[in-house]
Amino acid sequence: MWKKPTLIIDTAKVKLHIENMQSKATASQVIFRPHFKTHQSAEIGQLFKERGIIKITVSSVSMARFFARHGWKDITIAFPVNLAEIDEIEQLASHITLNLLVESTFSTQYIADHLESNVGIFIKIDTGYHRTGINSANYEKIGAITGIIKSSKKLSFKGFLAHAGHTYSSRSTDEIIDICQTSKEHLNALKNAFIDDFPGIIISYGDTPSCALIEDFSGIDEIRPGNFVFFDVMQSNLGSCTTRDIAVAVACPVVATHAERNELVIYGGAVHLSKEYILDKDDHRNYGLIVEMDRNGWSDPIQGAYVASLSQEHGIIHMPNPMFSKYNPGSTIGILPVHSCLTANLLKDDTFFL
Amino acid sequence: MWKKPTLIIDTAKVKLHIENMQSKATASQVIFRPHFKTHQSAEIGQLFKERGIIKITVSSVSMARFFARHGWKDITIAFPVNLAEIDEIEQLASHITLNLLVESTFSTQYIADHLESNVGIFIKIDTGYHRTGINSANYEKIGAITGIIKSSKKLSFKGFLAHAGHTYSSRSTDEIIDICQTSKEHLNALKNAFIDDFPGIIISYGDTPSCALIEDFSGIDEIRPGNFVFFDVMQSNLGSCTTRDIAVAVACPVVATHAERNELVIYGGAVHLSKEYILDKDDHRNYGLIVEMDRNGWSDPIQGAYVASLSQEHGIIHMPNPMFSKYNPGSTIGILPVHSCLTANLLKDDTFFL
Repeated sequence: MWKKPTLIIDTAKVKLHIENMQSKATASQVIFRPHFKTHQSAEIGQLFKERGIIKITVSSVSMARFFARHGWKDITIAFPVNLAEIDEIEQLASHITLNLLVESTFSTQYIADHLESNVGIFIKIDTGYHRTGINSANYEKIGAITGIIKSSKKLSFKGFLAHAGHTYSSRSTDEIIDICQTSKEHLNALKNAFIDDFPGIIISYGDTPSCALIEDFSGIDEIRPGNFVFFDVMQSNLGSCTTRDIAVAVACPVVATHAERNELVIYGGAVHLSKEYILDKDDHRNYGLIVEMDRNGWSDPIQGAYVASLSQEHGIIHMPNPMFSKYNPGSTIGILPVHSCLTANLLKDDTFFL
Repeated sequence: MWKKPTLIIDTAKVKLHIENMQSKATASQVIFRPHFKTHQSAEIGQLFKERGIIKITVSSVSMARFFARHGWKDITIAFPVNLAEIDEIEQLASHITLNLLVESTFSTQYIADHLESNVGIFIKIDTGYHRTGINSANYEKIGAITGIIKSSKKLSFKGFLAHAGHTYSSRSTDEIIDICQTSKEHLNALKNAFIDDFPGIIISYGDTPSCALIEDFSGIDEIRPGNFVFFDVMQSNLGSCTTRDIAVAVACPVVATHAERNELVIYGGAVHLSKEYILDKDDHRNYGLIVEMDRNGWSDPIQGAYVASLSQEHGIIHMPNPMFSKYNPGSTIGILPVHSCLTANLLKDDTFFL
C-alpha cells in the first residue's frame, strides 16, 4: 500500500487536539501561542489559522523564515538568540512582529547594538530543567538584562519564558503537575518583582505534558505546547495522552520475516523514525509501537509488538504470534513514533494527510 | 563564522580514505563496491569516479535512483528487496546494471514473476548479526531460492552477501578480526557448495570495522564498506580509525554559556546530529566529541569535552576549564559526530567542502 516510509497524519485527530487546547486556553484566558517545531508544516499551520490562531512559536530562525513566508506575522523564536544569524533576524524583524529569547547580558547587548528594527524580548528562566535559562532566583543577572533592554529603543521587554522540560523525566502525572506548580510560583515572584518597571510583561510557559494535563492555567499568561498536535509514545508513556490520541503513524513496507525469532524486518530505520527510544518495563529499548494500517487509519497498538532496533534504513519489529503470520514482504505495517517531533522532521517530504 | 549547523567535509581526508581502501582492495584483488549510504552525495560520488570506481552499493531504491540520475550504471541495493517498489525497480533495471538482495523464496518468486528486465541477485547471509539474512547453515532454504533463480530467465545469481554488523558491538579489534574470519569460513563453505551450479558467484562482504582493520581480503571477492569515507566517533571508539581520521565535523554556533556548570549551549540538536551516542568509561552518554574550528579545518578533540545531551535543536556541551572561557554566544564550535551516516543524512542540504 505504501512504497516507502511515510508519515500518515490523521487530520481529524490533529484538529481535535488543536480545538481542545484552544478551548482550555480560552477558558483560562491565556494566550495560545502553539509551538510549530513539532510539525514544521504549512498545511498543519493552516489548521491553526482556520481557528483564528495568529501567534506562534518556533525554535530556529530558519523555521521563523519558513512560517513568515507562509503568512505568519507574529512569531516568538523560543531558542537562545543565535547571534550568528543577526542579519536574518533583522530581515525578519523588519516585516513581522518578532520576539527573541535571551539569557545573558552578552547576547542582549549584542542585539541592542546590532538590530535596526524593533523586537520583543523574553528572558529565558530555568525552573529546574537546567538546559538553558537563568535561575529564577538570580535577580541580579535578570536585572542587568532588563537594564540593557530598558536603555535600548529597539528592544521591548515582553516577560519571562520557561520550558519545564524536566516533566519529560517524571514518573507520574502528579509529579508533572507539581513541577508546573513550583515553576509558576517562581515565575510569578519574578513577574511581581519587575511589573512596576515593565507593565504588561507576561509569563509564557511551555511543554506538552503540563499543558495537556493541567486544566486551569491561572498564574500563566501564555502557553506554548507543540507536541500535543500529534502526541507520541513518549507522551502516552508519561500519561499526557492515550495511545489512541496519537495522530501520526509511519507506514512502512515489510521486507523480510524471521519466524524463528518472531521478527519482521521493515524498510523504516533511524533516518525515518530517529533513534529516540523508551525503555519498557523489562528494560528493552522500544523505538515505536506497532499498529495495523488500513486506508482510513490504524488500529490500537498490537499487544506485545514493538520496534526493537533500528539501523540506518532497517527496522526490526518484535511481533508475537498469532499476528506474525499476517505479514509478508510487501505488506504495510504502521509505527507509532516514540518522539513525533523528530520523526516528523525526518519525514517532512514524505507525508500523507488522511 | 557559521550561521547554522553545517557539515564541514575535509575533502583531503575523504580522498585519502578512498585511496587507501582502493589500494587495499587492489592489492587483494577484490572488487571495491563502496557503500554510498553514508554520504548520499553526488559530489563525493565524483571523488570515487575520478579514481575509476564504477560499481557502488546503496541501501534503498530511492538512493539507487538518485545515483543513477548522477550517471552510476552498476548498483547493488544491499537491502532486502522492497516489493512495494517493484515498478521503480523495473524502471531502474531497464537502464542500468542492478543487483538486488533476497532472503526468502517469497520475495524471490515475486520478483521472478513481476520483473521484465534482467537483474542480478545476491542472497543475504546472516553470519551472526541476526538482523537480516539466512543462517549460513540453512542450505535447504538457500537451495530453494537458487532453484527459483535458476528457473527464471530474468534473474541471475551473483553470490552471497553478508554484513557483519555485530563488529559494531565488539570490545576489541581482535574480536572484529575474529568475526571476519568466522564469517569468511561460513561464506566460503556456501560458495563451494553452489559454485558448480553457478560458476562465477562471489562473496560480497561489508562493514567498515572489518574492511578498515583487515589488510588481506583473501577469501572475499568484493568489499562494500561505506562509513570509512568519513569515519566517526563510533569507529574511533572501536579502533577502526583514530579521531584524526574523522573527515567530517559539524560546525555549530554557541548560543549560551553556563559557567556554573561548565556547559555551552549550541544551536545543534537531534535534528542535526541524530540521537546516536556512545557510553564513555564513566557511563555518561556522549553524543559527540568537541573540536576547535578554523577556516582550514579543526583541532584534535578537546580533552574532557563532549556533547552531553541533545534536544530537537539544542545541544549541551560539557566543556572543562580553561577552554570554557574561549566561547561566547556567536562563537563557532565543532562536533565530531558519533555516527556520521545519520549526521550526514540530516545535514544533506547544509554541507561545506574544505
